[in-house]
Amino acid sequence: MAGGGAAASALSSPWRALIQRALDANAHLRHSTYFQLATVGAGGRPANRTVVFRGFQEHCDKIQINTDARSNKIVEIRNCPSGEVCFTELAHLYQYSWEQFRISGSIDVIDSSSADPTKLQHRENAWFTSSVKSRLQYLGPQPGIPVLDDEHTKDVHLDPSAGPVDAFCLLVLDPEKVRHTFFSPSLCWCCLTAIRLLNFWSSAMFTVDYLNLKSNQRLIFTRSLNGEGSNDWMAKTVCP
Amino acid sequence: MAGGGAAASALSSPWRALIQRALDANAHLRHSTYFQLATVGAGGRPANRTVVFRGFQEHCDKIQINTDARSNKIVEIRNCPSGEVCFTELAHLYQYSWEQFRISGSIDVIDSSSADPTKLQHRENAWFTSSVKSRLQYLGPQPGIPVLDDEHTKDVHLDPSAGPVDAFCLLVLDPEKVRHTFFSPSLCWCCLTAIRLLNFWSSAMFTVDYLNLKSNQRLIFTRSLNGEGSNDWMAKTVCP
Repeated sequence: MAGGGAAASALSSPWRALIQRALDANAHLRHSTYFQLATVGAGGRPANRTVVFRGFQEHCDKIQINTDARSNKIVEIRNCPSGEVCFTELAHLYQYSWEQFRISGSIDVIDSSSADPTKLQHRENAWFTSSVKSRLQYLGPQPGIPVLDDEHTKDVHLDPSAGPVDAFCLLVLDPEKVRHTFFSPSLCWCCLTAIRLLNFWSSAMFTVDYLNLKSNQRLIFTRSLNGEGSNDWMAKTVCP
Repeated sequence: MAGGGAAASALSSPWRALIQRALDANAHLRHSTYFQLATVGAGGRPANRTVVFRGFQEHCDKIQINTDARSNKIVEIRNCPSGEVCFTELAHLYQYSWEQFRISGSIDVIDSSSADPTKLQHRENAWFTSSVKSRLQYLGPQPGIPVLDDEHTKDVHLDPSAGPVDAFCLLVLDPEKVRHTFFSPSLCWCCLTAIRLLNFWSSAMFTVDYLNLKSNQRLIFTRSLNGEGSNDWMAKTVCP
């Protein structure tokens, strides 16, 4: 679900296949779908927390995150609707190597008060895609308030066919800038040749030299802001 | 080095032993010392990136990060000297469980222009504690500028006994608020008893109930701001 592997082939964003490959390679690791979401919090100070990647929205590159509508981050995001997520994935093929994806963009908060039927449908889809166990957390007390007794350990029941509860909120980050960094130690020529062959088979769509593993590499993808839903991405290789 | 295990026993901050235990448990994983640093970037927008935890500063709980003085984050931090780091550590004893530490505070930028001899000494210590390979990256071109040719792959030489180069910068985050969240699925009573015994032996210093693993748990530690170098921390258990 989170990786959205099947949908990846139909994508046009040049960075999407890079992240898809990293996610697929780490699919056996539960934490591969965790990433960190930075927002601007109270007093203009940065806030950062780990969230779960809930996949890309259908037919686009928007990133979905489920959260509690009562959490602090909702107030923060309504006040400053920008975010940057940071994926850090191990590059298993290459020992001691890892990839980082920094994706910044605007964040849309979709809760039960949304007036847009399409957005409400996305929220409902996200609810039903979650496990029943995940849904149960939205029936607990408000996040961040002091625990006065054992009320948060009380058993709660949820009808699996019931729609999203009020506390369930879908965050949708619309990427505007994607920064990809590949950190790798120097590799021997045997490894380099093997990796080149592998990449040649799998990523003909990239014009950038993704194979320069003798040093670290960093790519910046920026979306042209020439219209709603624009998907024109410009890639630039920069010093790491 | 990064874990600072030996020093941990002399600490008074109640959160420090929690993070130390998580780091020690994950010491065999190279990425256990990676964490994400959020700052406020250009236009007041959040910025987020993975950095390497370089340990706590001697005799205190300040968190050290090495970085390139020419990177964007230096400008950002000078403009808004606040940051929040997010450690995410797997809780290996408990399957599918993980711990999150969110540590926010002010950030001090220590580069070659610092007028404080003590800070310059900390910077020099950080330089020599890094591997020679790590130091080499500060001899490369400015991070983030376009790669025009293969100049960034050129071989560079560094005298291992030479002090820090101008591009080497030490960031020091002084924690003001620490939020700890332990995410765990429901455990059977056998596991719970084993964990309770283990925790009883290892963490008598905590007054909080760290053992309530039947649900997720979240702690907030806040430092009293009643003086320079204050180390009075207040712990509060809140709903996750």
